[in-house]
Amino acid sequence: MTQHCISISIVSFLIAASFSIVGCGPAEEPPEPLTGNETDPARFGEFYPFQYETFMRTKEMEETKYGGSYNYSYIERYPHLVRIFGGVGYGLDYKRARGHYWAVKDMLSIERSPKFATCFTCKSADAPRLMEEMGDAYYTTPLEEFVDVQAEIEAHDRHPYRDVKHASISCSDCHHPETMDLRITRPALKEALERRGTPVAGLSRNDMRSMVCAQCHVEYYFHPDPENRKVIFPWDEGFDPWDMEEYWNYRFTDMEEFAETGFYDYRHPQVDVPLRIIQHPEFEMFQGGTHQVNDVSCADCHMPVVEVDGRKEISHHITSPLNYIEETCQQCHNQTAAWLEERVYAAQERTLRMRRRAEDAMLAALDVLEAAKDTPGVDQNLLFEARQSYTGAHLRWQYVKAENSIGWHNPQKALEALGQSIDYAHQARDLARRAMGGRGVAGR
Amino acid sequence: MTQHCISISIVSFLIAASFSIVGCGPAEEPPEPLTGNETDPARFGEFYPFQYETFMRTKEMEETKYGGSYNYSYIERYPHLVRIFGGVGYGLDYKRARGHYWAVKDMLSIERSPKFATCFTCKSADAPRLMEEMGDAYYTTPLEEFVDVQAEIEAHDRHPYRDVKHASISCSDCHHPETMDLRITRPALKEALERRGTPVAGLSRNDMRSMVCAQCHVEYYFHPDPENRKVIFPWDEGFDPWDMEEYWNYRFTDMEEFAETGFYDYRHPQVDVPLRIIQHPEFEMFQGGTHQVNDVSCADCHMPVVEVDGRKEISHHITSPLNYIEETCQQCHNQTAAWLEERVYAAQERTLRMRRRAEDAMLAALDVLEAAKDTPGVDQNLLFEARQSYTGAHLRWQYVKAENSIGWHNPQKALEALGQSIDYAHQARDLARRAMGGRGVAGR
Repeated sequence: MTQHCISISIVSFLIAASFSIVGCGPAEEPPEPLTGNETDPARFGEFYPFQYETFMRTKEMEETKYGGSYNYSYIERYPHLVRIFGGVGYGLDYKRARGHYWAVKDMLSIERSPKFATCFTCKSADAPRLMEEMGDAYYTTPLEEFVDVQAEIEAHDRHPYRDVKHASISCSDCHHPETMDLRITRPALKEALERRGTPVAGLSRNDMRSMVCAQCHVEYYFHPDPENRKVIFPWDEGFDPWDMEEYWNYRFTDMEEFAETGFYDYRHPQVDVPLRIIQHPEFEMFQGGTHQVNDVSCADCHMPVVEVDGRKEISHHITSPLNYIEETCQQCHNQTAAWLEERVYAAQERTLRMRRRAEDAMLAALDVLEAAKDTPGVDQNLLFEARQSYTGAHLRWQYVKAENSIGWHNPQKALEALGQSIDYAHQARDLARRAMGGRGVAGR
Repeated sequence: MTQHCISISIVSFLIAASFSIVGCGPAEEPPEPLTGNETDPARFGEFYPFQYETFMRTKEMEETKYGGSYNYSYIERYPHLVRIFGGVGYGLDYKRARGHYWAVKDMLSIERSPKFATCFTCKSADAPRLMEEMGDAYYTTPLEEFVDVQAEIEAHDRHPYRDVKHASISCSDCHHPETMDLRITRPALKEALERRGTPVAGLSRNDMRSMVCAQCHVEYYFHPDPENRKVIFPWDEGFDPWDMEEYWNYRFTDMEEFAETGFYDYRHPQVDVPLRIIQHPEFEMFQGGTHQVNDVSCADCHMPVVEVDGRKEISHHITSPLNYIEETCQQCHNQTAAWLEERVYAAQERTLRMRRRAEDAMLAALDVLEAAKDTPGVDQNLLFEARQSYTGAHLRWQYVKAENSIGWHNPQKALEALGQSIDYAHQARDLARRAMGGRGVAGR
């Protein structure tokens, strides 16, 4: 069906083009110019039909061998994740992300709470308007207070841009509707770049081909002050998981509630360990990898130039490069598609092996941490150290788990993060055992 | 001084060449043809002066940032290695390897015992002759029984090929002296390749440009039967550390002494854990890495084509490619030398960080394994499991530690091996603690 849509679009385009070339036939009304608030991709499509049609293909759901855009349930596929998240948050409902088309629907449907208006920040093209209208309340207003969730889900089920209150991710998130220039519409990225001394104004066009993605494909957290809750990127010390840890360790020592360990998202219910939940740090994982240090941008691989009837166009079917090997990898690499695919899989398989090893170490640690929690007379200092160590294990593991390339964006960083996670998890188990004086230790 | 030698050699060559071109001057006697047993590089130099002069530069000692050919003492630089090796073997004397020029002298000088004639296998061009003359006794005859060690060290100190009984590594180890064809002179490689179904006869010239190196730059072990002791490469299951473990676990179950854990080199004296000692597995580490899967050979990076007065010659100054970036890396990669160097260092630094983390986990495990050994009533089943796990940690760690590229030959494999080592070391500690029922556990 999508192929069909593209064909129609191309035909319309060619008809329009030939009219203008030969200068005959009835004069067509030019489309209404786009304005700064336009969030409907169909309006952009009046000017850029190929970009529109390919963008709408983000509706398609395809699994690649280890990744892809099919929203299967992680916790059904890997039930031990429930234990790792303590049965709350991601432990309740955690699905693989799918294309931009589905963003609002999937956010509204996911069974995690609480949600705030700020959840639209990375899911809806409507976020800039909401931020402007609501001011600081945007970050603290419960979602249900101004969205009829069920009705909006149903509207998105019909179409995520037509007759909805809050459009899904759209052209305007990255393009200025009047000039089509790439632009940054989300303040958290602007602020993070300014704090790092590399403000948006100084970015090259090539930088922007990654930075528009870095508005959302990054780790963020909400300021823990319930009166604040602004979206912040933890980048001040760097992009690696240990940089984020360093940053959080010293960030909120002035707030009583977070003085113990700095910022955390919640305490794991069964073991009372503070967890730092990491979300989709694709941009951060990519930093320092072979592709990034060679100035490859996100768009180079995820938005390739494709040939359509002899014209070159940038595909907006933002998807796995494995679906476009000729137009992506093979623009630089002269090996066969099968060979290149195999290299990706080999790195991903290594990541998966190490990830499972980290999970096993974490599960073993959780058992002992849980036993220690309920042991009378446990050494609280050692138990505190054990929990700190586990917080570090979880952060490093989730940096890799939540990142959507199965390590491919930077295999060496992924493996170091997982190696450290294994180390920290085992340290946590050992400290917890020692906190109990070795007594009453169950198997595991 | 070496530069000087090269200049002389080039001048001599050019004089000789010009005589033959202009066909005047006194007719020179052609050098005596080489024969199948020639081990003196100077004789080869009569025909190939540039190759000879560059080969003799393996005498030079140069540290690169993290590697190089300077034979500093590892155990002086990293004293904790003494503990890891249990104060014996590598724990007594362990130096960084230097160039081929020094091989016999360094082998004879190193304070490790016992040594057998077979120690010449990778150190002396004389090994093929010794094997032929001594037959199976080559593998079992104590070195001191037929070498005056001190006198031979002194002879090598003067010159490793002139007036010595056993020449250091030489041209004939890789080249047929009559045809200069690349050849395999060491039976262990031939046998291992045959067992893997890829016999020498089927190898391409490009394969041979790595295989001549794989005669020695590989992990090997001695058959544990004291009547046998043949050199064997543990490649039957593959080239990775876990493949070697798999191979050894099932290899010697019929020999009573090795039935417990399969093959091992010795038992760590303080903790009574069987250790599998890994030596310089450069070839194995390289397998599956980006360069290897792109058909890059050892010689491409370690024996580059260099330009000498307009001629192209293969350098036999076998050394770190970082000393010849223009002639090695930059033949394929168009980035600057500084950029390329930085990529190597970044991967090596990651390896070093993870390696130190693995060592810390191993040291912590050794403390608890040692305590468990002397604890009355310790659970012997759990302690057996703990020791098995530690054997695995040591093997994986040493595969990376003994490999002479600090992980660069295959950074992802190095990181996975170290990640597994960390895991196994911690498992060993935990099992040992549980074997003691958690009682009497010292700090660490």
